Amino acid sequence: MTSTLSELLAVEPLGSSLRDALQHLIDTKTKPPGSLGRLEALARQLGLIQRTTRPRVERPVMIVFAGDHGIANEGVSPYPQAVTAQMVANFIAGGAAINAFSGVAGLELEIVDAGVATPLPPLPPLTEVSKLVSLPMARGTRNFAHEPAMTRDEAIAALAAGAARVRHHAALGTNVIGFGEMGIANTSSAACLMSRLCSVPIDECVGRGTGLDNAGLARKRNVLAAALARHPNAREPIDVLATFGGFEIAMMAGAFLEAARQRMAILVDGFIATAALLVADALAPHVREYCVFAHASNEAGHRRMLDHFGARELLALDLRLGEGTGAALAVPLLRAAVAFLNEMASFESAGVDERNERPSSERPERGH
Amino acid sequence: MTSTLSELLAVEPLGSSLRDALQHLIDTKTKPPGSLGRLEALARQLGLIQRTTRPRVERPVMIVFAGDHGIANEGVSPYPQAVTAQMVANFIAGGAAINAFSGVAGLELEIVDAGVATPLPPLPPLTEVSKLVSLPMARGTRNFAHEPAMTRDEAIAALAAGAARVRHHAALGTNVIGFGEMGIANTSSAACLMSRLCSVPIDECVGRGTGLDNAGLARKRNVLAAALARHPNAREPIDVLATFGGFEIAMMAGAFLEAARQRMAILVDGFIATAALLVADALAPHVREYCVFAHASNEAGHRRMLDHFGARELLALDLRLGEGTGAALAVPLLRAAVAFLNEMASFESAGVDERNERPSSERPERGH
Repeated sequence: MTSTLSELLAVEPLGSSLRDALQHLIDTKTKPPGSLGRLEALARQLGLIQRTTRPRVERPVMIVFAGDHGIANEGVSPYPQAVTAQMVANFIAGGAAINAFSGVAGLELEIVDAGVATPLPPLPPLTEVSKLVSLPMARGTRNFAHEPAMTRDEAIAALAAGAARVRHHAALGTNVIGFGEMGIANTSSAACLMSRLCSVPIDECVGRGTGLDNAGLARKRNVLAAALARHPNAREPIDVLATFGGFEIAMMAGAFLEAARQRMAILVDGFIATAALLVADALAPHVREYCVFAHASNEAGHRRMLDHFGARELLALDLRLGEGTGAALAVPLLRAAVAFLNEMASFESAGVDERNERPSSERPERGH
Repeated sequence: MTSTLSELLAVEPLGSSLRDALQHLIDTKTKPPGSLGRLEALARQLGLIQRTTRPRVERPVMIVFAGDHGIANEGVSPYPQAVTAQMVANFIAGGAAINAFSGVAGLELEIVDAGVATPLPPLPPLTEVSKLVSLPMARGTRNFAHEPAMTRDEAIAALAAGAARVRHHAALGTNVIGFGEMGIANTSSAACLMSRLCSVPIDECVGRGTGLDNAGLARKRNVLAAALARHPNAREPIDVLATFGGFEIAMMAGAFLEAARQRMAILVDGFIATAALLVADALAPHVREYCVFAHASNEAGHRRMLDHFGARELLALDLRLGEGTGAALAVPLLRAAVAFLNEMASFESAGVDERNERPSSERPERGH
């Protein structure tokens, strides 16, 4: 069942009716008020998202969307385009970083072929391929240095396809979800989306991606500045997505929208994932209220994206890999937030004295 | 079996013979070089500590040492001293933050009564009390505003007692360990240890602890400045510990020493735990090579302690609770570091192309 664009955009505000009840619960736990810092805010947000004072992390999922980019033909990445398909095979075979981190975090991992350009290489015998979902829009996007990456209809179809994957998991009970991506040259796509959607000069959006040298970085900047200049009229969010986006980014944007509609907590990964969120947010601004900004990537530009959302990341570990790795690493912090809220005793139930209410300056010098 | 002080101080240097082998393994994993950031450094450190290219996290343990402080009589904490015993009961009953976080992290939790002043309140029926180890040195320390907190012999005995708990867990296979603490007024003790051991003015070491107001903070500063002035000759590490320390802090310091001797990876928690590490480090400087600085506490002074060690924390979540909570939250990052090192495929084994070796500026404009 596909959703129409207008259905996808019907994201409701988070709401705040439980805020006081959650805060009271948090403040009566056996700890000094506020002493669990950002985990207290996280517990509050999870309670508001799930509309309960007993939020849970249920069947958390990571979906990695993979797609290729015509802009790769401009030499904007140090890796050949075939690496996208090779890494998809690596995800399926269990050999990538996101496989290792999903295992640690207890995440269900799904890989979506959103439009990989080259055929997948042969998989090792007995490989469990059930985690691959093949939904290719095409064999990669067109080269937006010359023409829009996809049509407007393709962009909307990709949004709907990403949303459908989230509905699949919602039906299985998932209430926490993260999105990752793989696509050679997709930092170029993300940088152009950021520049156009946030009105930031392209030079401030472009980074080294998987590891460009100085000459490569200069080349990437020139290529992307020219590409943006070629499409001056792409301003409306869907047009920006169609012109500069990738199939994996478009599906992620649709997945963000649907996850918010399903009132899931959404783990936001790094530069590419946050670019997809920029698209979703431009279409339905309440989406960001469901987002947990998992980490700050070392890719130049991500910090500024976080600033755009007024967001502070949970983790800053100098990652710049993508695949959803930063999002996966934040899952244990969500588990810790719901664990303290659900499991800790209150001062009253544990028989622990609360703080002295008199200011310390008025207390007798000795003896409690 | 107790250890002598000289045995405790025999901490060997970490060594670096496997550094190149570990780095090669990390660099050939299917990811851009360096893209896992601080987890790569963590994987390297764990390999060096365990002297293997396949480090593991085995039976991780959190020991929470609890003790009371005579300095509490000076009104330096907003909580009454009875809270130490009440919180020990709460740890045993499973209702504290460290219980919740240990569950999430898969940590074995042990509580050590190192010298709690008041009797434990009655525990609920059927409470599993096996996690409590009672090793009280006394019913709290003496008040160092007037006299040394403990004797030199008591300090050495407490170091040995902490070390013995670590040996107990080493025999059970533990190779990752963290230490937490509970003790009303122990930020006062830690601040004096820091001031004396790091030669930092006391005002820069004193924070609000569990939540002093401005008047309480001013009072605490005055009390501690006078206490330091009263003991001008306590300069040698064991004397500093005996004069200003607590039994829980002394046991933690011994536990740090023994954990390094056992070549465990040691998770360093916040302000109090790092003060105990200052003592251990003053006695045997190689200890720090085994340490993972888990988080930066919001208690004023902790940042400066981290700077003293040239350390960068893994997590910055605005915690200021103690109990080992920050250390516990870092365990999943250690699991992620060993998981990527042990489980990820190499470029060669996965059949993934490595990056183009020619600088991008020399590549043809189109096509790989």
